[in-house]
Amino acid sequence: MTLLFCSAFDDAAGYERAMAARLPDMPVRVYPDTGPPEAVTYAMVWRPPLGLLPSLPNLRAVFNLGAGVDGILSDSDVPDDVPVIRLADAGMAPQMVEWVLHGVLRFHRRFDEYEVEQAARRWTRLAVAPAGRTRVGLMGLGVLGQAVARQLTALGYAVRGWSRRPKTVDGVACFNGRDGLDAFLAETDILVCLLPLTRETRAILNRDTLGRLPRGACLINAARGGHLVDADLIALLDKDHLRGAQLDVFDPEPLPADHPFWSHPRIRVTPHVAAVTLIEPACDQIADIIRRLERGEAPAQAVDRTAGY
Amino acid sequence: MTLLFCSAFDDAAGYERAMAARLPDMPVRVYPDTGPPEAVTYAMVWRPPLGLLPSLPNLRAVFNLGAGVDGILSDSDVPDDVPVIRLADAGMAPQMVEWVLHGVLRFHRRFDEYEVEQAARRWTRLAVAPAGRTRVGLMGLGVLGQAVARQLTALGYAVRGWSRRPKTVDGVACFNGRDGLDAFLAETDILVCLLPLTRETRAILNRDTLGRLPRGACLINAARGGHLVDADLIALLDKDHLRGAQLDVFDPEPLPADHPFWSHPRIRVTPHVAAVTLIEPACDQIADIIRRLERGEAPAQAVDRTAGY
Ligand SMILES: NC(=O)c1ccc[n+]([C@@H]2O[C@H](COP(=O)([O-])OP(=O)(O)OC[C@H]3O[C@@H](n4cnc5c(N)ncnc54)[C@H](OP(=O)(O)O)[C@@H]3O)[C@@H](O)[C@H]2O)c1
Ligand SMILES: NC(=O)c1ccc[n+]([C@@H]2O[C@H](COP(=O)([O-])OP(=O)(O)OC[C@H]3O[C@@H](n4cnc5c(N)ncnc54)[C@H](OP(=O)(O)O)[C@@H]3O)[C@@H](O)[C@H]2O)c1
Repeated sequence: MTLLFCSAFDDAAGYERAMAARLPDMPVRVYPDTGPPEAVTYAMVWRPPLGLLPSLPNLRAVFNLGAGVDGILSDSDVPDDVPVIRLADAGMAPQMVEWVLHGVLRFHRRFDEYEVEQAARRWTRLAVAPAGRTRVGLMGLGVLGQAVARQLTALGYAVRGWSRRPKTVDGVACFNGRDGLDAFLAETDILVCLLPLTRETRAILNRDTLGRLPRGACLINAARGGHLVDADLIALLDKDHLRGAQLDVFDPEPLPADHPFWSHPRIRVTPHVAAVTLIEPACDQIADIIRRLERGEAPAQAVDRTAGY
Repeated sequence: MTLLFCSAFDDAAGYERAMAARLPDMPVRVYPDTGPPEAVTYAMVWRPPLGLLPSLPNLRAVFNLGAGVDGILSDSDVPDDVPVIRLADAGMAPQMVEWVLHGVLRFHRRFDEYEVEQAARRWTRLAVAPAGRTRVGLMGLGVLGQAVARQLTALGYAVRGWSRRPKTVDGVACFNGRDGLDAFLAETDILVCLLPLTRETRAILNRDTLGRLPRGACLINAARGGHLVDADLIALLDKDHLRGAQLDVFDPEPLPADHPFWSHPRIRVTPHVAAVTLIEPACDQIADIIRRLERGEAPAQAVDRTAGY
């Protein structure tokens, strides 16, 4: 019974130490030092090489070292009968709240426009609507979307949310499904994407949907680059339908050096850093779920592979 | 018994309407249509012309249409026996929280440095300390400073505060007086000034005090331009002792077109818009205090003219 770690993006030694402290009876192996394949019962991975997971005959679960499972479901080859388990929050929620909140405050308080005024050395006072009349629309009301919603309502923003299934969230005007999308977009001043990337949500931020936002609206994308049609965003910014965007995620990543987003005056780019997985809370979650699985309980946070998240 | 309104910076008609609705028996006059000077019992002012207030023999109180009373105390001529009353919050606190929070998030999450990376088309992930290890130091723990402290502690920041008199504020490490200043500064990563401008606090943000901040610290000034020695800030930024600044207030205002702040790459300028007085809550406060004064009660929010705030 071993736990295999395989990620080129995370700190192997840190995870090894953290898991050993939590599950002292379960040896941790770090890929490519896999050991006997039949000994591996659990794997914690981020973008594992093709062929690796199918080569492990006794795998009981795969832990995805992040909240988004689009990579592991689409680019990988997890055997059908092995549950994929995602991290929920794991230290990411407070970071995501901060990153999104920065964008909301920047657009609500017009810091983006004040930068333009500053460059022209102009002392121009711009009118600002109170938070209560600033409508922030969250696409995705999952673990991260709800954490963001709580903070935004605490600050007095008029928060709206959109999810796949009907939902009730305190202080949030809730919309759902394709049928609810137009009404949700029509009254959103600042749109925040916190969706998983699935068949249904790919390219959901496009000319049609973004065009339904009120004139002057702003976009914050912290989910996945695949949600956004890059050229549509630029077209809507350039014809002044949208005012600005704060983007953390791109397709592909790293964002190529010649991509127009880098130099667009109304786009702010960060390099996929909105919320990183933190070793300690991630390992708390993984150890806890392994213990449940070993007791024969159903895995918490298992991904619904049909829904894609 | 009339209430005189005198401000070139506020909406006279709006205040007139709002006060009439609250105190229907007290006629409002708008300067220069003062009416008989002996009829004026209350005045609500922002930068009144010299000579006006001493010409009103029956004045019972002067309301300053803002939180900062440095202007009315230093550049004006309020008779010694007339209490000066300031607005506390009056809709300003949530706005100030937003404006300061933008700066804290910008510096904590390194958006300022990501802008530099973006301009160079570089995909560089920068390390970020968690909020709990980011020490935000508030100079001034009054109405606005405490509102900011509450929000920052809710977000998990390590909040420290400095005031004139000893103070206890939930979740805030409190320092006070000149004796407490060095210790307060020595462990502050992001310094936020929310002090009143007085004899004691003028030029308090200078080469010596800012130099005591840890290397790489950032400054947020939302109080008054007179708190800051402009040349000292620039010198400390240029020798990389400080990393950046977000400034709302200047001496003089408007910031002159040839001032170096406008074009400094690590300074963000906004034109004294962090928190504006809102008519409705301001008039609620003024009406409430007038009613108390008329009942012979001591005026709430009276300025201590010796302390200067
Ligand atoms: N930039 C970064 O650093 C970073 C870090 C972490 C995560 N992320 C991204 O953030 C995403 C969200 O994470 P999470 O933990 O909050 O996910 P989650 O808990 O699974 O929540 C997903 C939300 O999206 C909704 N949704 C899914 N498909 C939908 C559809 N077709 N139409 C409408 N709503 C749909 C879900 O609706 P239901 O409530 O009806 O299920 C749910 O509310 C991740 O998938 C990842 O892509 C980015
Ligand atoms: N930029 C804008 O848009 C804007 C808008 C509104 C206000 N402001 C500025 O914000 C300032 C603060 O407003 P407020 O309503 O929070 O004021 P406040 O309630 O009077 O609070 C002032 C705070 O500063 C402290 N303080 C005063 N003198 C000090 C000294 N010599 N040393 C150390 N601490 C000292 C006070 O200490 P104690 O607690 O010991 O009294 C108190 O904590 C205003 O004066 C104004 O200049 C700016």
